[in-house]
Amino acid sequence: MSLERVLTQVDSDLEEATNRLLELLRIQSISTDPAYAKDCDAAADWLVADLKSIGFEASKRETPGHPMVVAHGRGSGTHAMFYGHYDVQPVDPIELWAKPPFEPAVEKTAKGKVIRGRGASDDKGQLMTFVEACRAWKAVYGTLPDRVSIFFEGEEESGSPSLIPFMKENRDELTADVALICDTGLFGDSTPAIVTRLRGLLGEEITITGPNKDLHSGMYGGIARNPIRVLAKIIASLHDHTGRIMVPGFYDGVADLPADIAQQWNDLGFENAEFLGEVGLGLPAGEDGRTGLEMIWSRPTCEVNGISGGYQGDGFKTVLPSQASAKISFRLVPGQDPLRLRENFRAFVQAQLPEDCTVEFAPHGASAASEMATDHPAFEKARQALSDEWPNEAAFVGCGGSIPIAGYFKDILDMDALLIGFGKDDDQIHSPNEKYDLSSFHKGIRSWVRVLDALAK
Amino acid sequence: MSLERVLTQVDSDLEEATNRLLELLRIQSISTDPAYAKDCDAAADWLVADLKSIGFEASKRETPGHPMVVAHGRGSGTHAMFYGHYDVQPVDPIELWAKPPFEPAVEKTAKGKVIRGRGASDDKGQLMTFVEACRAWKAVYGTLPDRVSIFFEGEEESGSPSLIPFMKENRDELTADVALICDTGLFGDSTPAIVTRLRGLLGEEITITGPNKDLHSGMYGGIARNPIRVLAKIIASLHDHTGRIMVPGFYDGVADLPADIAQQWNDLGFENAEFLGEVGLGLPAGEDGRTGLEMIWSRPTCEVNGISGGYQGDGFKTVLPSQASAKISFRLVPGQDPLRLRENFRAFVQAQLPEDCTVEFAPHGASAASEMATDHPAFEKARQALSDEWPNEAAFVGCGGSIPIAGYFKDILDMDALLIGFGKDDDQIHSPNEKYDLSSFHKGIRSWVRVLDALAK
Repeated sequence: MSLERVLTQVDSDLEEATNRLLELLRIQSISTDPAYAKDCDAAADWLVADLKSIGFEASKRETPGHPMVVAHGRGSGTHAMFYGHYDVQPVDPIELWAKPPFEPAVEKTAKGKVIRGRGASDDKGQLMTFVEACRAWKAVYGTLPDRVSIFFEGEEESGSPSLIPFMKENRDELTADVALICDTGLFGDSTPAIVTRLRGLLGEEITITGPNKDLHSGMYGGIARNPIRVLAKIIASLHDHTGRIMVPGFYDGVADLPADIAQQWNDLGFENAEFLGEVGLGLPAGEDGRTGLEMIWSRPTCEVNGISGGYQGDGFKTVLPSQASAKISFRLVPGQDPLRLRENFRAFVQAQLPEDCTVEFAPHGASAASEMATDHPAFEKARQALSDEWPNEAAFVGCGGSIPIAGYFKDILDMDALLIGFGKDDDQIHSPNEKYDLSSFHKGIRSWVRVLDALAK
Repeated sequence: MSLERVLTQVDSDLEEATNRLLELLRIQSISTDPAYAKDCDAAADWLVADLKSIGFEASKRETPGHPMVVAHGRGSGTHAMFYGHYDVQPVDPIELWAKPPFEPAVEKTAKGKVIRGRGASDDKGQLMTFVEACRAWKAVYGTLPDRVSIFFEGEEESGSPSLIPFMKENRDELTADVALICDTGLFGDSTPAIVTRLRGLLGEEITITGPNKDLHSGMYGGIARNPIRVLAKIIASLHDHTGRIMVPGFYDGVADLPADIAQQWNDLGFENAEFLGEVGLGLPAGEDGRTGLEMIWSRPTCEVNGISGGYQGDGFKTVLPSQASAKISFRLVPGQDPLRLRENFRAFVQAQLPEDCTVEFAPHGASAASEMATDHPAFEKARQALSDEWPNEAAFVGCGGSIPIAGYFKDILDMDALLIGFGKDDDQIHSPNEKYDLSSFHKGIRSWVRVLDALAK
């Protein structure tokens, strides 16, 4: 089967594809607000109908919340399971939208045409890139190059309460050779990216108690222990002068980046000064000798997300407070065991505590990092396919945060996921005036056409 | 003139003296509440009348706030200016008083008789010890052993807004050889104390800004500067491991305690474990090698009175905050220049600031420590006189906080002050059920009889 014919079909059908997306975008499928439950249902119905129209065996599946959409398309070769979500974020503050969020349209901008409307990028535009790619294959050849399943949820923007139970109940049906997830972005404007590493997260709140009540610093200052000072000393001791984290055993199991991935990251041309300059900073603050991308994608961190103690109002009170507390979190990388690190962290804090202070710990989440098995042939095939479509070579990249669905596919269905998306940093997802570049949509469809082709080989 | 005769007069007149105090305590002279302005006025009138009745040339002096009382009694020898305040604290929470706060009475308790009522200790009971001592001298000999002036204010519990202008306008009239102030306490239960050192105070609020907005720790964690960590590191650097403060020049001009004072303090039998145990602590947290009393009376401190940054609500947010701030204060001792230390502290902070962070400083007060010229003969005379009255030898002690009036006498009138008082730690001043031990009142009167005698010699 000739790839070129399918790509030509995509190009010639772009206007119709765009109109279909606009139709889906008009459905107000805000999942977090019960007032829009019928709209969520309507979006699921729309997708089922559309998938049926191109030959998928598609059905809406009820859950205690919003329905899932599951579809299967026949084909040989790799069995790919595609995931996206049809629900969208609320639109507040509505007054900041230049046009109504559910009256989407193609707009010309200085940077090219964009599809404007709530959900254009997150995630309706992205999921439709895949549906349109399938449609093009079917239009040209009447069949798909692979066996393709599709799984859309309608609760991604409201915490996915039905997702894990549904995956567990439908384990066999949802399991494929590899998962495809379209909910991420390009690197910069024109470099396609496959996210293969996601950092985990460990959160701990610590509260240090010194005196049994707030004291006056005139009467007690100098002799009495100040828990803010104890806390500051512990926080300061978490990193050495090279930025290395000092919790014992913290780096156990942490491997350096494979040379080929390191090379790909270096080739991305990431500029620390540019990235930091946009938020008013200038100097990378991580471990000495690490690149900026390593700092955010492949190195573990320890951060203080909040600190509190003593008098915080206007003016001044010369109080020696009884307590001080901090919310501390660790971004974890593959090889680190969150629960073991929690114990190590607690022991590290305890060891520094003066005898007459006590500490309480409150756990806030502990999820391990995930790393895709990029030696699965699908990864390199997809990378090549994407590189063929875009001006720049595609890269296996990291993600500093977490994308829960990828972990669920791995943990529940034992599937690695190809996280491929075409969003841009300026898409304003979750914000007013959300948009998706028409070029993201167009080249996104073409990208999936190529990936489906590559996976079949 | 025989001292014994006057002391005997005090003993025999105690019941009448107590009744006079109860009369003064019935006047609801709450200075901070305008509803009690007439009561404040009435208290001043009562004092003027009482002082006139024992031969003082006494007058009520109007101010923009509550009136002052100034009185002069003839005598030879040392000219002593006695200060006290007739205004009292509010009585809230009124429901916690066992009896109405302005219906004072003598009560028997397990620890002996007490005079219960608002102002019993702070400061009506204390100021009347001096008035009664004068009355006894007059009763026995028709004259005072010294030239005595008296100065009562009625705004001490509401910030003394009229005090400094009044002192400046009446500088000549209010200046004497030495000031006597009765608004402090005994050391423990039976050791009379003359406060000769008061620590100063320097306050600074620092706010460190890193990124120009709050960042997500998934996207930026590892590469972006976290101002909480910067702040914690600065706070941790303020003390070395021996408890010494590391701001350059901090100890310039700070002298060790004279040997005789150090000996007096050692003889006080202050127990760190007991003092700290009452507030749930156990280990003195000041400089290595210093006694507990040095830590609170004669050594400078640096404390963090409040700290704030990032997410402080319930639960967890993985934010990298834009700002973090702390309220930091220094208790100062004689020899330290607050304004120079402010500059040194700011430079110390600036020197540790990463290039891409900024800091803002907000000053909160800068008052130098004060130290009485204890080589003025009045100090040793008074100390001997107090030692004669009480079971334990009197000591020159320090005060970790500040007593503004002592500084004003020094700065405005160039007078050293003998801070002598008979309050006890359990007097519950500023709280419900305030009391003054009848023994404090009785032995307080006797103490002033002896001090007036000693000053005349």
